[in-house]
Amino acid sequence: MEVLVLGAGQLARMMALAGSPVGFNVCAFDVRTDKVVHPVTQTEVYSDLLSAILEVDVITAEFEHVPLDILQTCQQSGKLYPNSTAIKTGGDRRLEKALLEKVQTANAEHQVVNNRDDFNAALNKLGTPLVLKSALDGYDGKGQWRIKLPEQAEAVWQQVEQFLAHSSASQGVVAEQFVAFKREVSLVGARNRRGQLAFYPLAENIHVDGVLSLSIANEVNDDLQKQAETMFTAIANELKYTGVLAIEFFELDGQLLVNEIAPRVHNSGHWTQQGADTCQFENHLRAVFNLPLGSTQLIRPTAMINILGEDNLPDALLDIASLHLHWYGKEKRPGRKMGHINVSGKNNAELESRLREVAALLDPIKFPALSSYR
Amino acid sequence: MEVLVLGAGQLARMMALAGSPVGFNVCAFDVRTDKVVHPVTQTEVYSDLLSAILEVDVITAEFEHVPLDILQTCQQSGKLYPNSTAIKTGGDRRLEKALLEKVQTANAEHQVVNNRDDFNAALNKLGTPLVLKSALDGYDGKGQWRIKLPEQAEAVWQQVEQFLAHSSASQGVVAEQFVAFKREVSLVGARNRRGQLAFYPLAENIHVDGVLSLSIANEVNDDLQKQAETMFTAIANELKYTGVLAIEFFELDGQLLVNEIAPRVHNSGHWTQQGADTCQFENHLRAVFNLPLGSTQLIRPTAMINILGEDNLPDALLDIASLHLHWYGKEKRPGRKMGHINVSGKNNAELESRLREVAALLDPIKFPALSSYR
Repeated sequence: MEVLVLGAGQLARMMALAGSPVGFNVCAFDVRTDKVVHPVTQTEVYSDLLSAILEVDVITAEFEHVPLDILQTCQQSGKLYPNSTAIKTGGDRRLEKALLEKVQTANAEHQVVNNRDDFNAALNKLGTPLVLKSALDGYDGKGQWRIKLPEQAEAVWQQVEQFLAHSSASQGVVAEQFVAFKREVSLVGARNRRGQLAFYPLAENIHVDGVLSLSIANEVNDDLQKQAETMFTAIANELKYTGVLAIEFFELDGQLLVNEIAPRVHNSGHWTQQGADTCQFENHLRAVFNLPLGSTQLIRPTAMINILGEDNLPDALLDIASLHLHWYGKEKRPGRKMGHINVSGKNNAELESRLREVAALLDPIKFPALSSYR
Repeated sequence: MEVLVLGAGQLARMMALAGSPVGFNVCAFDVRTDKVVHPVTQTEVYSDLLSAILEVDVITAEFEHVPLDILQTCQQSGKLYPNSTAIKTGGDRRLEKALLEKVQTANAEHQVVNNRDDFNAALNKLGTPLVLKSALDGYDGKGQWRIKLPEQAEAVWQQVEQFLAHSSASQGVVAEQFVAFKREVSLVGARNRRGQLAFYPLAENIHVDGVLSLSIANEVNDDLQKQAETMFTAIANELKYTGVLAIEFFELDGQLLVNEIAPRVHNSGHWTQQGADTCQFENHLRAVFNLPLGSTQLIRPTAMINILGEDNLPDALLDIASLHLHWYGKEKRPGRKMGHINVSGKNNAELESRLREVAALLDPIKFPALSSYR
C-alpha cells in the first residue's frame, strides 16, 4: 500500500514509522524543495510530484496550507483523502467558521475583517478583549493580534492593515470575541472512507506563547467527552471527512467551544504513540485506506512534552521508566519543534511523579510548561 | 548516533523503526549482496562495508552466523557490541555448550561428535532418545537429527556422516540427550556496556516443525523467572555481553535447562513491541550505546504469532482490538518468516478471548499453533 503525504515534516515521518510494520509505504512531497522523499531517510523516492501522484494508491496531507494548484491536481487524481474541501477548510479560518456555523457547533463569536469598516463593525459588535487572526497560514500562534482595551484598537488596526497590504488578495482576518477559557482541550479522532468513527480521549493542552508545550491524556469527564464527540461527528460528517481530524476546544465551566480544527494528525495526539492502543498515525493510514480503525482506547495515562529549539537532552532522562523520546531528525533552529517526550504511568499519581522526575532534569526556561511539576 | 547492523533482515529493520525516534540511525550490511543499505527502504547508505565500519559509532549484529573475517574486521575497529566471542559462541553449539559448562548452568547432557567413534561413545553415554545438532549454521530446527530407538542409530549416522563430508572442516555435530520437557520458555534481557542488566518476563514458546510459531508473555511464576535471570546473569557476565541476549530453556517440573542462547534480539521477544514498556529493539540499541536501559516491565499480557510463507491476511483482523501487524516487507517464499501479529489484552482472559478471535480468522493449516484457541 503506497501513500504520498503532502508535506515532509515530522508528521509524515511518524506516519512512515508507524505505517511501515502495517504494510504502508510512505513517501512525502517536500513543498520547499519540490522533491518526493522518504520522510525518514530523506532519499528521493520519485523523480517528481506527478509521477508520485500517478504511482501511489492514496494521497494525504500533513498540513493544511498546501498550495491550491497542488491540492487541485491531487483531488483530480481521485486519490486524495481527506478531500480538498476539508483541507482548505482547515487552512482558512473564514471557511472553518462558516462550517462551524453551518453545523451549529459552539464557537467564539466572530466577524470577517477585510477593511477598516469591517474592523469598526467587529469592534462594535464583539467588544474587547478582541482577538484578530489571519484567515490563511495561521499556526502556532502566528498571525494573531490582541486588543485588550478599546484604546489599543487604533494601533492594532495599523498592524493589521500593514499585514493585509503585504499579503495576497486571498488573505483576510477574522475578529473573534476573546474567550476567558478555563483550559484548552483537544479531541483527536478518525473517520474512515465508509464513515466508521473512532475517538481518542480528550487531551488537555498547555500552550506557551501560542505553541503547544504539553498535552496530557487521561480518563476524562464523560460529559465533556460526549460533547466533544458530538461536535466532532457533526463536523466530520459534514466534510465527508476521511483520516485523522483534530479539534481544539476552549472549556468554559463544563461547556466546550470549538477553537479550531486541523484536518490531519496533530501534535496534541502524539501521546497516542505510547498511551493509546493504536496511535493516531496508524489510524490515519487505516482510515485513508478504508481499513477498519484501530482501537483508540487509553492504555496508560500519558503526557507529551514538546522539545522546542533543542537537540540535546540529558541521557539521565532515559533512566525514567515509561519515558520515550521522539526526535524528528531536524536541524536545530530557535523555537523549532525538534521532537517530543512521551511519559506514561499506570495511573495519574504515577504519571505526575514521573513528570516531576522529568521536570527536575530539564531546563525550566526551555520547558516552561513543566513549571507546575517543579 | 550511527549504527551498522551485520545482517539486513527483519531484525535490523525493526531496530531501525524502533531506533529512529530515539535518535539512532541504523544501516545494515546485507551479507548476500555485500551492500550497506537502510533496512527499511533498502536504499544504499554506504558504498561498501569498510566505509560503513569507519563512519558509524557502533557495530552490532542481527545474526550469529557472520563470516569470521567480517567479524574480525569489526572487532578490530573497537566498535563491535556484543563482542565477537559472544557472537561466535552463539553461532557454534560446541562453544555454547562449553560456556554453559564453564558457568555451571543446567543444560542437556551432550558430547561433541566428529567421527564414528565419537558417535558410538555418545550413544553409549547418553542413550536414546538422542538428538544430534550441527555445531554451526543451525537455526529454526535445521541441521538436526533424532534417534528415538537404538535400531535407528545406523541410518542416522549415515545422514550425519554425509552431512559432515559435505561441510567445511570447521563443522561438527553435538549429540544431546533428549529432554522430555513440559514446555519451552525464553528469557530476553539486555546488558549495557557498564554492566547494567534488565530482564523481560519469560515468554512461553510454541514451536512447529522446529520453527517458532507462538510466544506468549505474561506475569510469570517468580521462581522460574528468578532461575532464568540467575542463569542469564552468569552467561552474560562471563561473555562480557553487551546488547540484547535471548536464552531458550526447556522446563521440566519447575526446573529450567538452557537449550540455546542467541546473541541478539530474538523472535521470542517481538511481543515486547506492544507488551513491554520498552521494546527489545530499543533496548538493544540503548545497551550497545551504553545508555540507561529502558524499563522491561510487562504492560499488558501479549502474544506474538509468526506469519510464515504468507503475505496476505484478512483485513478483518484489524477489527480486533489490541492487534498489531508487523510485516517485514519481504518477498513471499514457502515457510519464510514474513511478519508477525502481536495481540494484547488487559488480562489473561481478554488475551485468550482475542486469540480465539484471531484463530477464527486464520487458516488452521498455516497457523497450526493456534489450534488450542479454535
